[in-house]
Amino acid sequence: MITDFNALVNLGKNLPQKRLVVCGGENETVQRAVKHAADLGLVKAILVGPADKIRETQCKVGLEAEVVDAESREEAAAKAVALIRTGEADILMKGMVDTSVLLKEVVNRETGIRLSGLLSHVTVFSIPKLNRLLLATDCAMVIAPDFTDKVRIIDNAINVAHALGIAIPKVAVLSATEKVNPKMPSSEEAAALARHFAGSEDVIVAGPYALDNVISEEAARHKGITGGAAGAADVIVFPGIEAGNIFYKTVVHLADAVPAGIVVGARSPIVLTSRADSEQAKFYSIVLAMVV
Amino acid sequence: MITDFNALVNLGKNLPQKRLVVCGGENETVQRAVKHAADLGLVKAILVGPADKIRETQCKVGLEAEVVDAESREEAAAKAVALIRTGEADILMKGMVDTSVLLKEVVNRETGIRLSGLLSHVTVFSIPKLNRLLLATDCAMVIAPDFTDKVRIIDNAINVAHALGIAIPKVAVLSATEKVNPKMPSSEEAAALARHFAGSEDVIVAGPYALDNVISEEAARHKGITGGAAGAADVIVFPGIEAGNIFYKTVVHLADAVPAGIVVGARSPIVLTSRADSEQAKFYSIVLAMVV
Repeated sequence: MITDFNALVNLGKNLPQKRLVVCGGENETVQRAVKHAADLGLVKAILVGPADKIRETQCKVGLEAEVVDAESREEAAAKAVALIRTGEADILMKGMVDTSVLLKEVVNRETGIRLSGLLSHVTVFSIPKLNRLLLATDCAMVIAPDFTDKVRIIDNAINVAHALGIAIPKVAVLSATEKVNPKMPSSEEAAALARHFAGSEDVIVAGPYALDNVISEEAARHKGITGGAAGAADVIVFPGIEAGNIFYKTVVHLADAVPAGIVVGARSPIVLTSRADSEQAKFYSIVLAMVV
Repeated sequence: MITDFNALVNLGKNLPQKRLVVCGGENETVQRAVKHAADLGLVKAILVGPADKIRETQCKVGLEAEVVDAESREEAAAKAVALIRTGEADILMKGMVDTSVLLKEVVNRETGIRLSGLLSHVTVFSIPKLNRLLLATDCAMVIAPDFTDKVRIIDNAINVAHALGIAIPKVAVLSATEKVNPKMPSSEEAAALARHFAGSEDVIVAGPYALDNVISEEAARHKGITGGAAGAADVIVFPGIEAGNIFYKTVVHLADAVPAGIVVGARSPIVLTSRADSEQAKFYSIVLAMVV
């Protein structure tokens, strides 16, 4: 079981090298993160985008990679996604391109790479105050998930947890309380999601929970909450993107957390870090995509 | 302007002593926090509840206080609220009593102490990574606020900010993005709230914001976001109680934050910390209530 990012990197080292295609490969921070992964032998890179700009950055960064020229960002997205579709690359990464432009190609019915389920974002956090990795979903992608979407969001997260060696992940569906309250729809939905997954052998889904009772054993004990995901969740599921996004920003900016983020639900994992994410966060996201 | 809890305590010391009534005064952690405030001369306490149990705890803690006997928690709530209503006490504090029992008395039309607006919860956080206090609302009380409720939640928070000496508080209305997105109602509501308060002279209300852009100057600069509450909000307003509650739990458990929390909108501030809050958090909440 992977409990920190060093162990994640070691797991990646034991896997066959993957081919990583970067859409908008001219971005310097992205190239540095890719170089870090390439130097460890984890990936071989293909950079798609304006060839002259890509090569300019390569000179600075020293990254060796195949270059595929594309004049516009739309062209870059189409070419990068095509490389996944044809099996010439294993992992897709967002570089200097708007998320909307890249995802439009990903979900294209004719030429895209979406599977039958839902694309959702899974973040793996390393947080100094926790002695394990914490998965969180969805902090960045699915705007207004309904019940079926949430089932799929959880399914996607379970796959990531299993890939990290967590045999029976404890998935906590969050609300603002641990009691079902008809005035708080998120608490009722959490209970319904727990019922939906009841009886599964390879996952425990429980809720509703207030956050403290699934990240702190002491808080759970103090409130007399046991079983399910009490005290130590592996995965937290947010009631909506606002809460997820606020959690993400809070732990990164106020709790020194390092995030690794990928989009799952497509034929390949997609590394979709934001411009504001650090080189380190981008590197760990690449390694996470390798392993999933 | 008050930028940390020490300054808050010093401000309290310069104010006339207040009379604090505790509903359910037999709780030990509450008594210790009250003793701390009493020893500094900030408050004089009245403890309402089962007299024998209250005195038992007093023996342990060493808190001198007037005791008002009440057999049931309902009776304690009624007697404590009555003391505020008749002007015999200035601050109401929740001790060993369910929040619902206490608030039922607070909002009673005949005998309660609610003003015409909305009761809402304001938390003041001291967070190690920030060099100022951060106000947050509503993390604990109003379950499903509509637009009018949110206006009142903001009004209540502005009053607290002014009491802390922040002449023109920067209030950031949060969403998961800083762009208005019709698919994300919280972003549209944030923009509408900003419009509602436009032109106010004693407050700046702006939004929507993703959290990072109002707690981190660097994040705001990186995204080119300026003006309004960019970089340094004094008050953050959550889209709903789930996001607020998750933020509260995250900063307390993962970012070593100390919270002080009160309910505002009644004739007196109400110290309404939860059982899980520390003695320190309860003490600072008392001081906050003194000052507001």
